[in-house]
Order: sequence, then structure tokens, then C-alpha cells
Amino acid sequence: MRDLVIVGSGPAGLSAAVYAKRAMMDVVVLEKEAFSGGQIVNTEQVDNYLGLPGISGFDMGMKFREHADTFGVEFDDREVTAIEDHGDHKKVSLEDGSSIETKAVLIATGAKHRKLGVPGEEEFTGAGVSYCATCDGAFFKNKEVAVVGGGNIALEDALYLSKMCSKVHLIHRRDEFRGEKILGAQVLETENIEFHSFAQVTEIGGTPGKLNLKVAVNTPKTVGGQANRDFTLPVAGVFIAIGTSPVTDFLGDVVELDDAGYVAAGETGQTSTPGIFAAGDVRTKAVRQVATAVGDGAAVIHYVEEYLNGLKKKA
Amino acid sequence: MRDLVIVGSGPAGLSAAVYAKRAMMDVVVLEKEAFSGGQIVNTEQVDNYLGLPGISGFDMGMKFREHADTFGVEFDDREVTAIEDHGDHKKVSLEDGSSIETKAVLIATGAKHRKLGVPGEEEFTGAGVSYCATCDGAFFKNKEVAVVGGGNIALEDALYLSKMCSKVHLIHRRDEFRGEKILGAQVLETENIEFHSFAQVTEIGGTPGKLNLKVAVNTPKTVGGQANRDFTLPVAGVFIAIGTSPVTDFLGDVVELDDAGYVAAGETGQTSTPGIFAAGDVRTKAVRQVATAVGDGAAVIHYVEEYLNGLKKKA
Repeated sequence: MRDLVIVGSGPAGLSAAVYAKRAMMDVVVLEKEAFSGGQIVNTEQVDNYLGLPGISGFDMGMKFREHADTFGVEFDDREVTAIEDHGDHKKVSLEDGSSIETKAVLIATGAKHRKLGVPGEEEFTGAGVSYCATCDGAFFKNKEVAVVGGGNIALEDALYLSKMCSKVHLIHRRDEFRGEKILGAQVLETENIEFHSFAQVTEIGGTPGKLNLKVAVNTPKTVGGQANRDFTLPVAGVFIAIGTSPVTDFLGDVVELDDAGYVAAGETGQTSTPGIFAAGDVRTKAVRQVATAVGDGAAVIHYVEEYLNGLKKKA
Repeated sequence: MRDLVIVGSGPAGLSAAVYAKRAMMDVVVLEKEAFSGGQIVNTEQVDNYLGLPGISGFDMGMKFREHADTFGVEFDDREVTAIEDHGDHKKVSLEDGSSIETKAVLIATGAKHRKLGVPGEEEFTGAGVSYCATCDGAFFKNKEVAVVGGGNIALEDALYLSKMCSKVHLIHRRDEFRGEKILGAQVLETENIEFHSFAQVTEIGGTPGKLNLKVAVNTPKTVGGQANRDFTLPVAGVFIAIGTSPVTDFLGDVVELDDAGYVAAGETGQTSTPGIFAAGDVRTKAVRQVATAVGDGAAVIHYVEEYLNGLKKKA
């Protein structure tokens, strides 16, 4: 019987693993990819994790993994298919039909940025196509960029980028924003943001740093007036902000999720099920960054230890 | 008028400064010491901040400061004497009688470990005397150590150290613990923890790594029986866990504090006063680590930006 199974080897999972080893827990980290680091691995450059300025996402993943290795953290690359709660012990089922018995589980599977699913998107990811304005915005100083989406993140990204980019095109399928009114109003008032309503990017072409976005416009008849005019938009970069989705498929109903599908847990990482914890991007929170994931991983182990001490007392 | 004044240049303040610069805020960091890094500067080795394994606290402070410097963060080493809230603007008063006007303030002044105030304590700090078992415990593997205190942290430290040290002496002024019963019970049940009640360390002597603790015992007459016997305890290290105190003297009543004197704020960093935020060790939280402070600094700027956007909308 393990003390703790950590599901996921991104910044949250690895930080938690370091703390768990220091607390002398019998812990294993399950990672479905053949490498550690999570989403950052695909980020061109991370410049906002204090102490490691201007590092590539790949190198950061390597450094994080090496740190865990210095503590002899055990990794297992079988994918988790289910977690069962049996009170004082949990059963973690794996893709090969085997399972691990453990006292506690930490869900640190992170989130994935939703993709547009259009031609060119994959090809130009990291070469003009980005899913994180806070991460990559600074690389487009004084250049023309586009943001795709109409929620809070898209609006915030447009405002954020408007301060450093020469011009920001906001491309949204409707003429109303899903995001907060105040943000929408600010976007519309900002001189160097141009709003393209009823618009959808259908293809990303061009060359790295000189992209051509094919944009289809479908104004409903009821709105009338303006004729639909598809156009091609030349930009240095495009930020796709149509939401993220947490990696929670394997959880079934073993823990409560919030309305957006993230694991409902505050900064303690405690979920609705005692002994099952969540840390990093997969849990309810406003700011999903490497720094906040690493902080989560450090904090949650305190509560895992408290839980394990409680079990010991009962026994 | 500044956008943001950050008070404190430890991990939380510096992480926030990096995020604030990336968000193009007009920001200044006030630090009363002549160097950055906060408490870590005095830590022999930090091994649990993901990505920087086995680094000295001093070097970590330097790295953090260098990172902030790459963004051109402005520092000012005048000490803050007061913060006044005037709604949409705040006034930060400095020791020289001058002041800074700002839209928002971030309190990131951290906490200080309480000291015993006995001879030898200063001299052996970092050479056997530690205020953080999680930070330094691993350096005392298979050695005999002492923990001073009777609260939750002292009990947790004793349990934590008992797993890696050959023996742990718990030295406490009373025969009852202030900490949780369950932790106290576990401490008493743990074979390699020896509990010294009604005991106080009066002096720390010896040489680095071979300390001699002078312990005075004062059993009250009502407890009777055992005669008081002062003794000298040879240990490799002593962990002083008699509490921390947040650095909040300059705050007056501009924000609400919690019962322990920390700034009442959750993971959003929002205090009881709109426009005044708190991050890192100075705020209410269970786990005070470099990683959680850096995470706080990253997260809070999101909420500062939201606040500044709100002000702009009003204007």
C-alpha cells in the first residue's frame, strides 16, 4: 500500500513529489507522456517563473524532472483509467488492467488549451500560434497580432497585448462577449484593438512570424446591413483563447467538479473526497501559471501529511 | 501616481514584480534591507523550490533579484512607515518623511521566525540552529536533534524529523501542547522522540554541528514528584519552532488582520481594503514556503490588474 499516488508530472505534480519525498512518503508519480513538464514543454520560452528567466519550456521541464530525480522520485508511465475511493484506501486503475493501492491520491493532470482545429494551427504552434498571452505576449512587442475568442481570457489577452503590440485584432464568432461587461467595454474603447464580430478563423497560413489568417464572416440576416466579407489578415502572431479543458475524464464521479469541469478544490487542494487531493491547473482557480502550480504542489503535501497522520491515528 | 507599490522584496514581492512588469504596470518595490530575497537569504540550503535544487538561500536571493532586474524593476530601499487608504488612491509614507501616491499596494513583507533570545542562538544560526525543519531537516539525517516549542509547527517538526533523524528531543515549557491533540499523541507515541516537559533552553554552546544545549527544568510543585534537574543536551542541530510573527507593524488598521496577526487574505491576495493586496508569508495560509510565496506573487497580479481595470472604467 502506497502513501500517495500523484497523477501527472507537470509543475504541480513534480513539486508535490519533491515535497512528498522530503516528508518520507512512499510515493509514485504516474505520467502518461514519455516526458515530464506538462504543458510547458510546448512553450517557446517561459520568463515568469522566478529564478529561471528566459528558459525554454522544454529545458524547464528537464530541470524540473532532474530536481525530482535528485530525490529518487519513482515514475511510472502507465496511464490512469480510474480512481476508486474505498475510504481509508484508494484504488488507482491503470491502462494495462493492473492497479495500485494507496492511502491518498493527488490529481495533478493539468489542463489543455482548447484548439481551433483548423489547418495550420498545429504547424505554427510555437511559431506564431500561442495559447497564452501572458507567456508569449512580450515576444510580439510593437507587432500586429490577433486574439481569437470572446470570453474573459480572450478579452484580458486583447487588453494585455494592446499595451505592447502595435495593433490587436479580436476575432469572435458573435457580436457579444461571453466575458465580463467591463472587460468588453474596455476592449471596445481601446484604440488599437479592432473587433471583428461574427468572424471565425478557418485557416492559418503564411510563414513563421508572418502568418495569414483566413477569416470567414457570417453576419446573421437579423443584424443585417453589412454584407458578409471573408478576408485574410496578416499578423505576426495569433493567440487562441477559446478556453481550456481540464484533464479529468478518468475521474468519473469520484470527486466533485466545478461548473467549468475543474476539480473543486481551494488552495488546500482538498477535494470533496477525503484522501483525494488536487493541485495545479486541474483545480478551481483563476491564475494557471507554472509558479502557481509549483506553489500548489508544495502546499498540498502539508494537507496530505495531515490526512496520513489522521489515518495512522485511527489505525 | 504609480499603478502599484510592492512592499517587500522576498520571493512573493519579486515574483509579483516580474508579473507586474509583464503587465506593463508602473511599479516600484520597496525593500528595507540592502538586498533582496527575504528570509531565505539566511537559509543554508534550499532544496524544495522546483528547478533550483540544492541552492544556498543567498544565491537564490541573488537569482531572484537578477530575474527582476532583467525586467527593469525599480527598487527603493526606504522603509515604509504607514499606508493610508484614500479609496481610489493610496499613500505610502516613507521613513524620510516623503511619500508615494499609488493606485494599489501589495503587502509582501513576509514573516519572521520568533527567536528564543538566548546566548549562542545568533552565533549558530545556519550552523546547527534552524527555524525550519522542512528546509533543513534533511541535513541532519541519522543525527540527534532537538525541537523547541509546543505548538503545531513544533509537533509537526518533531514528527517530520523523527523519520530521518536518529533521535529527536522535544523541549517544551509546559507538559501540555498548544498544538492539535492528534499531533501531540503521535509525538508521545513515536519511539525516537523524547519529550522534555517544563523545560527551557537557556543557552546554546558547543561548535557547529556539535551543539550543547543548556536546558533548565522547572516542574511546578503541584505536579510534584520528580526533582528539577537542569541538564546539558548534546545535539547536531536544534530547530526553534516557537512561532513566527508577520511583519505588519506599519499597517495600523488599514487592513484586517487574522487572529494570529497575519493579513487576512486568501489565495486571491485581496484584503479587507479594496486596492490593498497581500502575498506570501504575511497573509493567512498554512504553508509558508518559497514555492507558495512565488505562486502568490504570480496569482495576485491578476487581481491587481482586475482592480486597476475597474478604476480605469470608473474614471
